[in-house]
Amino acid sequence: MKRTAFFLSDGTGLTAEALGHSLLAQFEKIDFERITVPYIDDADKAREMVKRINKAAEVDGTRPLVFDTIVDRDIRDLISGADGFMVDIFGTFLSPLEQELQSSSSYTVGKSHAINNEGSYERRIHAVNFALDNDDGARTRHYNEADLILVGASRSGKTPTCLYLALQYGVKAANYPITEEDLDDQKMPAALRSHKEKIFGLTIDPERLATIRNERKPNSRYSSLKQCMHEIEEIELMYRRERIPFLNTTAYSVEEISTRIMVTTGLKRNR
Amino acid sequence: MKRTAFFLSDGTGLTAEALGHSLLAQFEKIDFERITVPYIDDADKAREMVKRINKAAEVDGTRPLVFDTIVDRDIRDLISGADGFMVDIFGTFLSPLEQELQSSSSYTVGKSHAINNEGSYERRIHAVNFALDNDDGARTRHYNEADLILVGASRSGKTPTCLYLALQYGVKAANYPITEEDLDDQKMPAALRSHKEKIFGLTIDPERLATIRNERKPNSRYSSLKQCMHEIEEIELMYRRERIPFLNTTAYSVEEISTRIMVTTGLKRNR
Repeated sequence: MKRTAFFLSDGTGLTAEALGHSLLAQFEKIDFERITVPYIDDADKAREMVKRINKAAEVDGTRPLVFDTIVDRDIRDLISGADGFMVDIFGTFLSPLEQELQSSSSYTVGKSHAINNEGSYERRIHAVNFALDNDDGARTRHYNEADLILVGASRSGKTPTCLYLALQYGVKAANYPITEEDLDDQKMPAALRSHKEKIFGLTIDPERLATIRNERKPNSRYSSLKQCMHEIEEIELMYRRERIPFLNTTAYSVEEISTRIMVTTGLKRNR
Repeated sequence: MKRTAFFLSDGTGLTAEALGHSLLAQFEKIDFERITVPYIDDADKAREMVKRINKAAEVDGTRPLVFDTIVDRDIRDLISGADGFMVDIFGTFLSPLEQELQSSSSYTVGKSHAINNEGSYERRIHAVNFALDNDDGARTRHYNEADLILVGASRSGKTPTCLYLALQYGVKAANYPITEEDLDDQKMPAALRSHKEKIFGLTIDPERLATIRNERKPNSRYSSLKQCMHEIEEIELMYRRERIPFLNTTAYSVEEISTRIMVTTGLKRNR
Protein backbone atom coordinates (compact mmCIF):
# COMPACT_ATOMS: atom_id res chain seq x y z
CA MET A 1 0.00 0.00 0.00
CA LYS A 2 1.17 3.48 -0.79
CA ARG A 3 1.32 6.13 1.94
CA THR A 4 2.14 9.75 1.37
CA ALA A 5 4.66 11.34 3.73
CA PHE A 6 5.11 15.09 3.94
CA PHE A 7 8.19 16.79 5.37
CA LEU A 8 7.27 20.34 6.28
CA SER A 9 9.29 23.23 7.58
CA ASP A 10 9.35 26.98 7.85
CA GLY A 11 13.06 26.74 7.05
CA THR A 12 14.93 24.55 4.55
CA GLY A 13 13.14 21.33 5.49
CA LEU A 14 16.47 19.50 5.77
CA THR A 15 15.96 18.49 9.40
CA ALA A 16 12.37 17.32 8.90
CA GLU A 17 13.54 15.32 5.92
CA ALA A 18 16.54 13.77 7.68
CA LEU A 19 14.45 12.70 10.65
CA GLY A 20 11.47 11.59 8.58
CA HIS A 21 13.63 9.51 6.27
CA SER A 22 15.34 7.87 9.27
CA LEU A 23 12.02 6.89 10.77
CA LEU A 24 10.49 5.70 7.50
CA ALA A 25 13.60 3.64 6.73
CA GLN A 26 12.37 1.39 9.54
CA PHE A 27 9.28 0.45 7.55
CA GLU A 28 10.74 -1.27 4.54
CA LYS A 29 7.57 -2.94 3.37
CA ILE A 30 5.64 0.25 2.84
CA ASP A 31 5.94 2.29 -0.29
CA PHE A 32 6.09 5.98 0.64
CA GLU A 33 5.51 8.90 -1.67
CA ARG A 34 7.78 11.53 -0.12
CA ILE A 35 7.08 15.24 -0.49
CA THR A 36 9.20 17.97 1.08
CA VAL A 37 7.75 21.45 1.37
CA PRO A 38 10.13 24.04 2.85
CA TYR A 39 9.52 27.71 3.73
CA ILE A 40 5.95 27.39 5.02
CA ASP A 41 6.31 30.66 6.86
CA ASP A 42 2.93 32.34 6.82
CA ALA A 43 -0.71 31.48 7.44
CA ASP A 44 -1.61 31.46 3.75
CA LYS A 45 1.04 28.91 2.92
CA ALA A 46 -0.07 26.85 5.92
CA ARG A 47 -3.69 26.86 4.73
CA GLU A 48 -2.57 25.86 1.22
CA MET A 49 -0.62 23.03 2.83
CA VAL A 50 -3.64 21.83 4.80
CA LYS A 51 -5.57 21.56 1.53
CA ARG A 52 -2.75 19.63 -0.05
CA ILE A 53 -2.58 17.18 2.85
CA ASN A 54 -6.35 16.68 2.82
CA LYS A 55 -6.26 16.12 -0.93
CA ALA A 56 -3.59 13.43 -0.51
CA ALA A 57 -5.69 11.79 2.21
CA GLU A 58 -8.61 11.66 -0.19
CA VAL A 59 -6.62 10.32 -3.11
CA ASP A 60 -4.75 7.71 -1.04
CA GLY A 61 -7.79 6.67 0.94
CA THR A 62 -5.71 6.99 4.11
CA ARG A 63 -4.25 9.94 5.96
CA PRO A 64 -0.69 10.98 5.09
CA LEU A 65 2.17 11.11 7.59
CA VAL A 66 3.24 14.67 8.32
CA PHE A 67 6.72 15.26 9.75
CA ASP A 68 7.19 18.89 10.62
CA THR A 69 9.86 21.09 12.15
CA ILE A 70 7.77 24.24 12.02
CA VAL A 71 8.83 26.53 14.84
CA ASP A 72 6.01 29.05 14.77
CA ARG A 73 3.20 27.79 16.98
CA ASP A 74 0.40 29.46 15.04
CA ILE A 75 1.51 27.94 11.77
CA ARG A 76 1.92 24.57 13.44
CA ASP A 77 -1.58 24.80 14.86
CA LEU A 78 -2.98 25.45 11.41
CA ILE A 79 -1.14 22.44 9.96
CA SER A 80 -2.33 20.18 12.76
CA GLY A 81 -5.89 20.83 11.59
CA ALA A 82 -5.21 18.76 8.47
CA ASP A 83 -6.22 15.15 8.06
CA GLY A 84 -2.76 13.75 8.64
CA PHE A 85 -0.84 11.71 11.19
CA MET A 86 1.31 14.38 12.80
CA VAL A 87 4.89 13.77 13.83
CA ASP A 88 5.33 17.19 15.33
CA ILE A 89 8.99 17.39 16.18
CA PHE A 90 9.21 20.85 17.75
CA GLY A 91 5.84 20.49 19.39
CA THR A 92 6.96 17.26 21.02
CA PHE A 93 10.37 18.23 22.25
CA LEU A 94 10.46 22.00 22.74
CA SER A 95 8.39 22.32 25.84
CA PRO A 96 10.12 19.54 27.78
CA LEU A 97 13.42 21.17 26.76
CA GLU A 98 12.19 24.55 27.95
CA GLN A 99 11.40 23.02 31.31
CA GLU A 100 14.71 21.22 31.55
CA LEU A 101 16.69 24.30 30.55
CA GLN A 102 14.46 26.65 32.55
CA SER A 103 14.62 28.96 29.60
CA SER A 104 12.02 29.83 27.03
CA SER A 105 12.56 29.00 23.42
CA SER A 106 13.05 31.91 21.07
CA TYR A 107 10.65 30.30 18.55
CA THR A 108 12.66 31.67 15.72
CA VAL A 109 12.41 30.22 12.30
CA GLY A 110 15.10 28.72 10.16
CA LYS A 111 17.93 28.79 12.62
CA SER A 112 19.49 25.46 11.94
CA HIS A 113 20.68 25.89 8.37
CA ALA A 114 21.01 29.65 8.39
CA ILE A 115 24.24 31.55 8.69
CA ASN A 116 24.14 31.99 12.47
CA ASN A 117 27.81 32.27 12.89
CA GLU A 118 29.49 33.92 9.98
CA GLY A 119 32.99 32.74 10.86
CA SER A 120 31.84 29.16 11.01
CA TYR A 121 29.99 29.41 7.70
CA GLU A 122 33.01 30.93 6.02
CA ARG A 123 35.18 28.11 7.31
CA ARG A 124 32.92 25.63 5.55
CA ILE A 125 33.08 27.53 2.26
CA HIS A 126 36.84 27.93 2.61
CA ALA A 127 37.08 24.20 3.20
CA VAL A 128 35.11 23.54 -0.01
CA ASN A 129 37.48 25.78 -1.94
CA PHE A 130 40.43 24.09 -0.30
CA ALA A 131 39.13 20.66 -1.35
CA LEU A 132 38.68 21.88 -4.94
CA ASP A 133 42.09 23.53 -5.11
CA ASN A 134 43.84 20.53 -3.64
CA ASP A 135 41.98 17.81 -5.46
CA ASP A 136 43.59 14.84 -7.13
CA GLY A 137 47.16 15.73 -6.17
CA ALA A 138 46.90 18.87 -8.30
CA ARG A 139 48.90 20.83 -5.77
CA THR A 140 50.77 19.55 -2.79
CA ARG A 141 52.30 22.76 -1.52
CA HIS A 142 49.28 23.57 0.65
CA TYR A 143 49.41 20.29 2.54
CA ASN A 144 50.67 22.09 5.63
CA GLU A 145 47.28 23.86 5.80
CA ALA A 146 45.30 20.63 5.38
CA ASP A 147 43.49 18.99 8.28
CA LEU A 148 43.53 15.71 6.42
CA ILE A 149 45.03 14.20 3.27
CA LEU A 150 42.99 11.40 1.74
CA VAL A 151 44.95 8.95 -0.38
CA GLY A 152 43.85 6.01 -2.49
CA ALA A 153 43.56 4.58 -5.98
CA SER A 154 41.96 6.67 -8.69
CA ARG A 155 38.12 6.47 -8.32
CA SER A 156 38.10 5.04 -4.82
CA GLY A 157 35.89 7.88 -3.52
CA LYS A 158 38.38 10.53 -2.41
CA THR A 159 36.90 13.63 -4.04
CA PRO A 160 33.24 13.31 -2.95
CA THR A 161 34.44 12.47 0.56
CA CYS A 162 36.66 15.58 0.72
CA LEU A 163 33.76 17.74 -0.45
CA TYR A 164 31.37 16.26 2.08
CA LEU A 165 33.89 16.68 4.90
CA ALA A 166 34.21 20.33 3.89
CA LEU A 167 30.48 21.06 3.62
CA GLN A 168 29.39 19.11 6.68
CA TYR A 169 32.31 19.56 9.05
CA GLY A 170 34.37 22.47 7.71
CA VAL A 171 37.36 20.12 7.55
CA LYS A 172 40.05 21.05 5.02
CA ALA A 173 40.79 17.82 3.20
CA ALA A 174 43.22 17.48 0.30
CA ASN A 175 43.42 14.32 -1.71
CA TYR A 176 46.22 12.53 -3.49
CA PRO A 177 45.76 9.68 -5.95
CA ILE A 178 48.24 6.86 -5.57
CA THR A 179 49.42 5.94 -9.05
CA GLU A 180 51.37 3.04 -10.43
CA GLU A 181 54.58 5.05 -10.41
CA ASP A 182 54.12 5.66 -6.70
CA LEU A 183 53.63 1.94 -6.18
CA ASP A 184 56.66 0.93 -8.21
CA ASP A 185 58.80 2.94 -5.81
CA GLN A 186 57.59 0.76 -2.95
CA LYS A 187 57.45 3.75 -0.66
CA MET A 188 55.22 6.61 0.26
CA PRO A 189 55.16 9.40 -2.36
CA ALA A 190 57.61 12.17 -1.47
CA ALA A 191 54.89 14.84 -1.32
CA LEU A 192 53.19 12.92 1.47
CA ARG A 193 56.13 11.85 3.55
CA SER A 194 56.35 14.98 5.67
CA HIS A 195 52.60 14.96 6.44
CA LYS A 196 52.26 11.38 7.55
CA GLU A 197 50.11 12.17 10.60
CA LYS A 198 47.43 13.72 8.35
CA ILE A 199 47.12 10.84 5.94
CA PHE A 200 44.10 8.58 5.77
CA GLY A 201 43.78 5.84 3.18
CA LEU A 202 40.78 4.65 1.20
CA THR A 203 40.53 1.26 -0.36
CA ILE A 204 37.77 -0.46 -2.29
CA ASP A 205 37.01 -3.94 -3.60
CA PRO A 206 38.73 -4.40 -6.98
CA GLU A 207 35.52 -5.62 -8.64
CA ARG A 208 33.68 -2.46 -7.60
CA LEU A 209 36.61 -0.29 -8.66
CA ALA A 210 36.68 -1.93 -12.09
CA THR A 211 32.94 -1.23 -12.50
CA ILE A 212 33.36 2.44 -11.59
CA ARG A 213 36.41 2.88 -13.83
CA ASN A 214 34.65 1.18 -16.73
CA GLU A 215 32.02 3.91 -16.69
CA ARG A 216 34.71 6.51 -17.30
CA LYS A 217 37.08 4.60 -19.57
CA PRO A 218 35.44 1.46 -20.87
CA ASN A 219 37.61 -1.51 -21.81
CA SER A 220 40.89 0.15 -20.95
CA ARG A 221 43.85 -1.28 -19.11
CA TYR A 222 43.04 1.28 -16.37
CA SER A 223 39.61 -0.23 -15.79
CA SER A 224 40.53 -3.90 -16.17
CA LEU A 225 39.92 -6.12 -13.16
CA LYS A 226 43.52 -7.30 -13.32
CA GLN A 227 44.86 -3.76 -13.05
CA CYS A 228 42.42 -2.88 -10.25
CA MET A 229 43.39 -5.99 -8.29
CA HIS A 230 47.05 -5.18 -8.67
CA GLU A 231 46.68 -1.55 -7.57
CA ILE A 232 44.49 -2.34 -4.58
CA GLU A 233 46.78 -5.11 -3.39
CA GLU A 234 49.83 -2.87 -3.57
CA ILE A 235 48.04 0.07 -1.98
CA GLU A 236 46.80 -1.96 0.97
CA LEU A 237 50.32 -3.35 1.43
CA MET A 238 51.63 0.21 1.51
CA TYR A 239 49.00 1.27 4.07
CA ARG A 240 50.00 -1.61 6.31
CA ARG A 241 53.72 -1.08 5.86
CA GLU A 242 53.45 2.65 6.56
CA ARG A 243 50.83 2.18 9.28
CA ILE A 244 48.34 4.47 7.56
CA PRO A 245 44.80 4.10 8.96
CA PHE A 246 42.44 3.08 6.18
CA LEU A 247 38.87 2.21 5.33
CA ASN A 248 37.27 0.03 2.67
CA THR A 249 34.62 2.23 1.07
CA THR A 250 32.84 -0.42 -1.00
CA ALA A 251 29.71 -0.70 1.11
CA TYR A 252 29.62 2.83 2.47
CA SER A 253 28.00 6.06 1.39
CA VAL A 254 29.98 9.28 1.39
CA GLU A 255 28.23 10.26 4.65
CA GLU A 256 29.33 7.02 6.30
CA ILE A 257 32.89 7.24 4.98
CA SER A 258 33.14 10.80 6.27
CA THR A 259 31.76 10.15 9.75
CA ARG A 260 33.98 7.09 10.11
CA ILE A 261 37.02 9.15 9.15
CA MET A 262 36.03 11.78 11.72
CA VAL A 263 35.79 9.09 14.41
CA THR A 264 39.01 7.28 13.48
CA THR A 265 41.15 10.39 13.13
CA GLY A 266 39.62 12.24 16.07
CA LEU A 267 39.29 15.34 13.88
CA LYS A 268 37.03 18.01 15.32
CA ARG A 269 34.36 19.73 13.28
CA ASN A 270 35.38 23.24 12.36
CA ARG A 271 32.06 25.06 12.23
CA MET B 1 25.71 28.48 32.19
CA LYS B 2 27.24 25.75 30.12
CA ARG B 3 25.27 22.62 29.28
CA THR B 4 26.67 19.60 27.54
CA ALA B 5 24.61 18.15 24.69
CA PHE B 6 25.33 14.70 23.28
CA PHE B 7 24.14 13.54 19.86
CA LEU B 8 24.24 9.76 19.82
CA SER B 9 23.56 7.24 17.12
CA ASP B 10 24.24 3.70 16.09
CA GLY B 11 24.69 5.07 12.56
CA THR B 12 26.42 8.23 11.33
CA GLY B 13 24.82 10.54 13.90
CA LEU B 14 23.85 13.00 11.18
CA THR B 15 20.13 12.85 11.95
CA ALA B 16 20.57 13.16 15.72
CA GLU B 17 22.87 16.11 15.09
CA ALA B 18 20.55 17.84 12.63
CA LEU B 19 17.57 17.53 14.92
CA GLY B 20 19.50 18.37 18.08
CA HIS B 21 21.04 21.47 16.53
CA SER B 22 17.61 22.62 15.32
CA LEU B 23 16.16 22.32 18.78
CA LEU B 24 19.13 23.89 20.56
CA ALA B 25 19.13 26.80 18.10
CA GLN B 26 15.92 27.85 19.88
CA PHE B 27 17.84 28.46 23.11
CA GLU B 28 20.22 31.20 22.14
CA LYS B 29 21.16 32.27 25.64
CA ILE B 30 22.61 28.96 26.67
CA ASP B 31 26.13 27.94 25.83
CA PHE B 32 26.13 24.31 24.71
CA GLU B 33 29.13 22.05 24.50
CA ARG B 34 28.14 19.76 21.63
CA ILE B 35 29.49 16.23 21.34
CA THR B 36 28.52 13.81 18.58
CA VAL B 37 29.22 10.13 19.05
CA PRO B 38 28.27 7.93 16.09
CA TYR B 39 28.39 4.14 15.73
CA ILE B 40 27.32 3.18 19.27
CA ASP B 41 26.36 -0.25 18.07
CA ASP B 42 27.07 -2.68 20.88
CA ALA B 43 26.51 -2.96 24.62
CA ASP B 44 30.14 -2.19 25.51
CA LYS B 45 30.09 1.09 23.60
CA ALA B 46 26.76 1.93 25.22
CA ARG B 47 28.18 1.33 28.71
CA GLU B 48 31.21 3.47 27.87
CA MET B 49 28.82 6.17 26.73
CA VAL B 50 26.84 6.00 29.97
CA LYS B 51 30.06 6.61 31.90
CA ARG B 52 30.89 9.55 29.69
CA ILE B 53 27.46 11.12 30.15
CA ASN B 54 27.63 10.64 33.92
CA LYS B 55 31.11 12.16 33.99
CA ALA B 56 29.83 15.24 32.11
CA ALA B 57 26.94 15.52 34.57
CA GLU B 58 29.44 15.52 37.42
CA VAL B 59 31.78 18.07 35.83
CA ASP B 60 28.97 20.41 34.73
CA GLY B 61 27.02 20.07 37.96
CA THR B 62 23.90 19.48 35.87
CA ARG B 63 22.74 16.62 33.67
CA PRO B 64 23.59 16.76 29.96
CA LEU B 65 21.01 16.71 27.19
CA VAL B 66 21.13 13.48 25.21
CA PHE B 67 19.64 13.43 21.70
CA ASP B 68 19.69 9.95 20.29
CA THR B 69 18.57 8.17 17.15
CA ILE B 70 19.64 4.73 18.35
CA VAL B 71 17.43 2.12 16.74
CA ASP B 72 18.36 -0.93 18.81
CA ARG B 73 16.11 -1.05 21.87
CA ASP B 74 18.61 -2.80 24.12
CA ILE B 75 21.29 -0.23 23.43
CA ARG B 76 18.79 2.57 23.93
CA ASP B 77 17.73 1.09 27.24
CA LEU B 78 21.33 1.05 28.42
CA ILE B 79 21.83 4.70 27.42
CA SER B 80 18.65 5.77 29.17
CA GLY B 81 20.20 4.58 32.43
CA ALA B 82 22.64 7.49 32.29
CA ASP B 83 22.19 10.72 34.22
CA GLY B 84 21.02 12.73 31.24
CA PHE B 85 17.90 14.44 29.93
CA MET B 86 16.87 12.09 27.16
CA VAL B 87 15.46 13.28 23.86
CA ASP B 88 14.85 9.83 22.55
CA ILE B 89 13.81 10.32 18.97
CA PHE B 90 13.15 6.75 17.86
CA GLY B 91 11.73 5.79 21.24
CA THR B 92 9.27 8.66 21.01
CA PHE B 93 8.08 8.29 17.45
CA LEU B 94 8.55 4.68 16.36
CA SER B 95 5.78 3.02 18.28
CA PRO B 96 3.09 5.56 17.35
CA LEU B 97 4.23 5.16 13.75
CA GLU B 98 4.03 1.37 14.05
CA GLN B 99 0.44 1.72 15.22
CA GLU B 100 -0.47 4.17 12.50
CA LEU B 101 1.14 2.07 9.79
CA GLN B 102 -0.03 -1.22 11.32
CA SER B 103 3.39 -2.55 10.54
CA SER B 104 6.28 -3.35 12.82
CA SER B 105 9.51 -1.48 12.49
CA SER B 106 12.47 -3.45 11.24
CA TYR B 107 14.67 -1.92 13.96
CA THR B 108 17.62 -1.93 11.67
CA VAL B 109 20.57 0.26 12.32
CA GLY B 110 22.09 2.87 10.11
CA LYS B 111 19.50 2.92 7.38
CA SER B 112 19.18 6.57 6.76
CA HIS B 113 22.62 7.39 5.46
CA ALA B 114 23.54 3.97 4.18
CA ILE B 115 23.49 2.92 0.55
CA ASN B 116 19.96 1.48 0.56
CA ASN B 117 19.35 2.05 -3.05
CA GLU B 118 22.45 1.69 -5.12
CA GLY B 119 21.03 3.42 -8.18
CA SER B 120 20.07 6.43 -6.13
CA TYR B 121 23.46 6.63 -4.44
CA GLU B 122 25.23 6.39 -7.76
CA ARG B 123 23.12 9.22 -9.13
CA ARG B 124 24.36 11.44 -6.31
CA ILE B 125 27.99 10.57 -6.98
CA HIS B 126 27.47 11.05 -10.72
CA ALA B 127 25.96 14.43 -9.97
CA VAL B 128 29.04 15.40 -7.92
CA ASN B 129 31.29 14.39 -10.81
CA PHE B 130 29.06 16.28 -13.21
CA ALA B 131 29.32 19.42 -11.07
CA LEU B 132 33.12 19.12 -10.97
CA ASP B 133 33.45 18.47 -14.68
CA ASN B 134 31.15 21.33 -15.60
CA ASP B 135 32.37 23.87 -13.10
CA ASP B 136 33.12 27.47 -13.90
CA GLY B 137 32.15 27.31 -17.56
CA ALA B 138 34.99 24.86 -18.15
CA ARG B 139 32.90 22.88 -20.57
CA THR B 140 29.56 23.76 -22.02
CA ARG B 141 29.01 20.80 -24.32
CA HIS B 142 27.36 18.74 -21.60
CA TYR B 143 24.70 21.33 -20.84
CA ASN B 144 22.06 19.16 -22.49
CA GLU B 145 22.61 16.61 -19.69
CA ALA B 146 22.36 19.23 -16.95
CA ASP B 147 19.26 19.56 -14.76
CA LEU B 148 20.26 23.13 -13.94
CA ILE B 149 22.82 25.72 -15.03
CA LEU B 150 23.75 28.23 -12.35
CA VAL B 151 25.03 31.54 -13.62
CA GLY B 152 26.43 34.56 -11.80
CA ALA B 153 29.46 36.74 -11.16
CA SER B 154 32.71 35.10 -10.19
CA ARG B 155 32.57 34.23 -6.46
CA SER B 156 28.85 34.64 -6.04
CA GLY B 157 28.48 31.10 -4.62
CA LYS B 158 27.89 28.98 -7.71
CA THR B 159 30.33 26.13 -7.09
CA PRO B 160 29.48 25.23 -3.47
CA THR B 161 25.79 25.40 -4.39
CA CYS B 162 26.24 23.02 -7.33
CA LEU B 163 28.12 20.58 -5.11
CA TYR B 164 25.49 20.73 -2.39
CA LEU B 165 22.68 20.21 -4.92
CA ALA B 166 24.55 17.14 -6.18
CA LEU B 167 25.26 15.61 -2.77
CA GLN B 168 21.90 16.36 -1.20
CA TYR B 169 19.51 16.04 -4.12
CA GLY B 170 21.38 14.18 -6.86
CA VAL B 171 20.72 17.16 -9.14
CA LYS B 172 23.19 17.64 -11.99
CA ALA B 173 24.09 21.30 -11.89
CA ALA B 174 26.63 22.98 -14.17
CA ASN B 175 27.77 26.52 -13.57
CA TYR B 176 28.83 29.34 -15.81
CA PRO B 177 30.53 32.53 -14.64
CA ILE B 178 29.28 35.69 -16.29
CA THR B 179 32.32 37.73 -17.22
CA GLU B 180 32.79 41.28 -18.34
CA GLU B 181 33.03 40.21 -21.96
CA ASP B 182 29.63 38.57 -21.67
CA LEU B 183 28.22 41.78 -20.22
CA ASP B 184 29.72 44.00 -22.92
CA ASP B 185 27.74 42.05 -25.48
CA GLN B 186 24.52 43.03 -23.71
CA LYS B 187 23.07 39.60 -24.34
CA MET B 188 23.07 36.15 -22.94
CA PRO B 189 26.29 34.21 -23.63
CA ALA B 190 25.93 31.99 -26.69
CA ALA B 191 26.66 28.79 -24.76
CA LEU B 192 23.61 29.44 -22.60
CA ARG B 193 21.12 30.62 -25.14
CA SER B 194 19.84 27.19 -26.14
CA HIS B 195 19.37 26.10 -22.51
CA LYS B 196 17.43 29.03 -21.23
CA GLU B 197 14.86 26.97 -19.35
CA LYS B 198 17.61 25.45 -17.18
CA ILE B 199 19.24 28.69 -16.15
CA PHE B 200 19.06 30.08 -12.65
CA GLY B 201 20.92 33.24 -11.64
CA LEU B 202 22.76 34.10 -8.46
CA THR B 203 23.44 37.62 -7.34
CA ILE B 204 25.07 39.05 -4.25
CA ASP B 205 25.53 42.43 -2.61
CA PRO B 206 28.54 44.16 -4.19
CA GLU B 207 30.10 44.91 -0.76
CA ARG B 208 30.01 41.25 0.18
CA LEU B 209 31.35 40.23 -3.22
CA ALA B 210 34.26 42.67 -2.87
CA THR B 211 35.11 41.18 0.54
CA ILE B 212 35.09 37.63 -0.80
CA ARG B 213 37.13 38.55 -3.88
CA ASN B 214 39.66 40.45 -1.77
CA GLU B 215 40.47 37.25 0.07
CA ARG B 216 41.51 35.65 -3.20
CA LYS B 217 43.07 38.60 -5.02
CA PRO B 218 43.68 41.47 -2.62
CA ASN B 219 43.67 45.02 -3.95
CA SER B 220 43.01 44.06 -7.54
CA ARG B 221 40.67 45.69 -10.00
CA TYR B 222 38.72 42.39 -9.89
CA SER B 223 38.04 42.79 -6.19
CA SER B 224 37.43 46.54 -6.10
CA LEU B 225 34.03 47.68 -4.91
CA LYS B 226 33.61 49.71 -8.08
CA GLN B 227 34.12 46.69 -10.30
CA CYS B 228 31.82 44.53 -8.17
CA MET B 229 29.09 47.16 -8.26
CA HIS B 230 29.38 47.41 -12.01
CA GLU B 231 29.24 43.65 -12.60
CA ILE B 232 26.32 43.07 -10.25
CA GLU B 233 24.31 45.91 -11.73
CA GLU B 234 24.81 44.64 -15.26
CA ILE B 235 24.15 41.03 -14.29
CA GLU B 236 20.88 41.86 -12.54
CA LEU B 237 19.83 43.89 -15.58
CA MET B 238 20.55 40.89 -17.77
CA TYR B 239 18.52 38.59 -15.48
CA ARG B 240 15.57 40.94 -15.67
CA ARG B 241 15.87 41.48 -19.41
CA GLU B 242 16.11 37.76 -20.13
CA ARG B 243 13.57 36.81 -17.44
CA ILE B 244 15.99 34.51 -15.66
CA PRO B 245 14.81 33.61 -12.13
CA PHE B 246 17.44 34.70 -9.62
CA LEU B 247 18.30 34.83 -5.94
CA ASN B 248 20.44 37.16 -3.85
CA THR B 249 22.73 34.86 -1.88
CA THR B 250 24.22 37.43 0.51
CA ALA B 251 22.35 36.37 3.63
CA TYR B 252 21.91 32.70 2.80
CA SER B 253 23.86 29.54 3.52
CA VAL B 254 24.52 27.05 0.77
CA GLU B 255 21.75 24.84 2.22
CA GLU B 256 19.27 27.72 2.02
CA ILE B 257 20.33 28.75 -1.48
CA SER B 258 19.96 25.15 -2.64
CA THR B 259 16.55 24.50 -1.10
CA ARG B 260 15.26 27.82 -2.46
CA ILE B 261 16.47 26.91 -5.93
CA MET B 262 14.72 23.53 -5.65
CA VAL B 263 11.46 25.27 -4.69
CA THR B 264 11.68 28.01 -7.33
CA THR B 265 12.62 25.75 -10.22
CA GLY B 266 10.37 22.87 -9.19
CA LEU B 267 13.28 20.46 -9.70
CA LYS B 268 12.74 17.03 -8.20
CA ARG B 269 15.33 15.30 -6.11
CA ASN B 270 17.00 12.52 -8.02
CA ARG B 271 17.82 10.01 -5.29
